[in-house]
Amino acid sequence: MSLTVVGSIAFDAVETQAGSRDRLLGGSAVHFALASSFFADTRVVGPVGDDFGEAEYTALRSRGVITDDIEHVPGGKTFFWAGRYERDVNIRHTLQTDLNVFEHFKPSLSGASAAADVVFLANIQPDLQREVREQCTAARFVALDSMNLWIDIAHESLLRTIGLVDGVILNDSELKQLTDEPNLVRAAHAVLDLGPTVVVAKQGEYGSALFTRDGYFALPAYPTTEVIDPTGAGDSFAGGFMGCVAANPDEEVDEALLRRAMAYGTVLASFNVEAFGPERVLRLGREEIAERIADLHRSTSFDDAPIALR
Amino acid sequence: MSLTVVGSIAFDAVETQAGSRDRLLGGSAVHFALASSFFADTRVVGPVGDDFGEAEYTALRSRGVITDDIEHVPGGKTFFWAGRYERDVNIRHTLQTDLNVFEHFKPSLSGASAAADVVFLANIQPDLQREVREQCTAARFVALDSMNLWIDIAHESLLRTIGLVDGVILNDSELKQLTDEPNLVRAAHAVLDLGPTVVVAKQGEYGSALFTRDGYFALPAYPTTEVIDPTGAGDSFAGGFMGCVAANPDEEVDEALLRRAMAYGTVLASFNVEAFGPERVLRLGREEIAERIADLHRSTSFDDAPIALR
Repeated sequence: MSLTVVGSIAFDAVETQAGSRDRLLGGSAVHFALASSFFADTRVVGPVGDDFGEAEYTALRSRGVITDDIEHVPGGKTFFWAGRYERDVNIRHTLQTDLNVFEHFKPSLSGASAAADVVFLANIQPDLQREVREQCTAARFVALDSMNLWIDIAHESLLRTIGLVDGVILNDSELKQLTDEPNLVRAAHAVLDLGPTVVVAKQGEYGSALFTRDGYFALPAYPTTEVIDPTGAGDSFAGGFMGCVAANPDEEVDEALLRRAMAYGTVLASFNVEAFGPERVLRLGREEIAERIADLHRSTSFDDAPIALR
Repeated sequence: MSLTVVGSIAFDAVETQAGSRDRLLGGSAVHFALASSFFADTRVVGPVGDDFGEAEYTALRSRGVITDDIEHVPGGKTFFWAGRYERDVNIRHTLQTDLNVFEHFKPSLSGASAAADVVFLANIQPDLQREVREQCTAARFVALDSMNLWIDIAHESLLRTIGLVDGVILNDSELKQLTDEPNLVRAAHAVLDLGPTVVVAKQGEYGSALFTRDGYFALPAYPTTEVIDPTGAGDSFAGGFMGCVAANPDEEVDEALLRRAMAYGTVLASFNVEAFGPERVLRLGREEIAERIADLHRSTSFDDAPIALR
C-alpha cells in the first residue's frame, strides 16, 4: 500500500480571472502526491533548491506525504513556472519556465521508494522515466504521464518507456499526437499495442476515458461552476487514480478497480481547480471526496430498460 | 405518440477520407426523422424542389416517416450543401451552400402536424421556429436546435423563441456563444433561466450533457472507430432523444426519462456516422439499437462502494 511519484516540484505564478498568485507550491509530483495522500503512503522523488523551505515541507507533511526522497540541491533554485489563463480557462499561456534544479535532475530512488507497490512516473524526460521504471522491480502497477515536448523531441525513447509500464495517462490530444491517429479509440489502442494494459485519456472539461484491451469506460468531468485555477488538475486526476489502485493492494488491477480509480481521479481533479494551486486539496476532507463520488455516480446512471422500437 | 419535426430537407455532397458522395439525402429534418422513426410516428415539415423524387420519398417511407407535410415547391430546387471533412473528422469545411427553396420557406403545419405530442424545431430562422411553436398548442414537449449564424444575427429572436420551448439541444460551443459564458455549466443554467426546463449540450466526440434545474447527467460518445461521415450526427442525436420522449407518452418528462433519451440519442448518433449520409440508419435494425444501449450502459457503470480514505 505504498506509492512513489517521481516528477517536478515547483513554484508556480498564476494569473486567472479570479486573481493572481506569485508563489504557489506546484509541480506535477506535488499535485499528484497531495491527491494520492488520501489513499496511500506517498513518497515524492524530485529536486528542490534552497528556496524550498519549511513551509513547503510542512504543507506536504500535513497531508502525510513522505518527503524523505525530496532531493535538496544546495545553491540551486526550485523549478519555476508562470502562466496566465484566459476567461475561458481552457486557454492557457505560459509566461515563463525556469527549469533551475530540474534541468539536471537524475532521479535516485531510496530503497523505500523503489520498493513501492504502485509507481507514477510524472512528466519528465522519458529516458529518466525508464531508469526509474527499471529500479522499481517489485511494483504491482506502474504508470506514466508525458507531454507534447517529449512526443516531439524524444519520440522513440518515449515509445520504449511506454513499452515498460502498465498504464499510460495522457491528454487525449497527446494520445492522438503520439500515435498520429485523430480517432481517440484507435489512438488508445495503438498505445495498448505498445505494451501497457491500461490507457487513460484525460479530456479536460469533458472528463476522461479508460481503455483496456477488451474494455471501454468513460466519465464526464464533475460539473464545476467555479474554476479558479486549473493548474495541476491532470496531476490530481492521476493522483486520485493511482491512489485508488494503491489503496486496494489485494485486488487485481482489473476493469472494476480501474473504473473506481477513474471516479476518484475525476473527483480529486474537480477539487483541485476550485482554488489556486494546492489550496483546495490541502483543506479537503475525506467526507467531501465520498460525497462527490456519490454525486458523480448519480450523474452518470441511467435506466437501460428496453423501449419498444419500431 | 406522434412527433413532428420542422427543418431542412437537403441533398448533400460530402468528401471524407473514406471517399465521396455527390448527392446524399440529407438535411436536419431528414436525419432527425430517420432516427426518431424507431420510436414514434414522425411527420416531416420542410420544403423540397422538383429534384426531390420518388427515390427520396421511398427512403423516408421505408422507415415509416410520414411525408404528407413535405412541401413541394414547383420549379424550385432542393437545399444543397457540400462539405469536406479532414482526416480528423472534427474539422469540417463547407464548400457550398445553396439554400434554394429553403430560402423562402414558411412552415405551414397541417392539423396532424400541429397536433403532435412532441415537436422538434430543427435549425431554422428563430422567427419561423416561434411561429411553428405557437401553432403546436397541444404539445407535451417542444425542443429546438439552432446554430452560430442565428446566435450572431438573430440573437434577440432566438432568446424569445427559447423562452417558449421546453428543451434546447445545442452544441456546447453554441451554448457558450449564446450566453457569452465559457463555463458550460453556467452557460446551460443561463439558458434554463430563459424558460426551458431542459438543456442538452452536444459535445461531438466527447458525448453530451443534460442540464435541468436540479439535475446533471452526462454520457460519453459511443466509442466508434470508423467515422465515415459525421454529417447529421447531431440531428440523429436529437431524433433519438426526442423519439424516446415521444415513445413514452404516459411518463412525465422527468430526469429519469430524459436520461434514457440521452442514451438513445447517443446511440442513434453513433450509427449515423458509420456510413455516408443516412445510409447506416436506413439499414439499421432495432436489435442493434438495443445492443448498443446495453453496451453504453456497461461503459458508464462503476461501483461506488466507499474506500477507506486517510
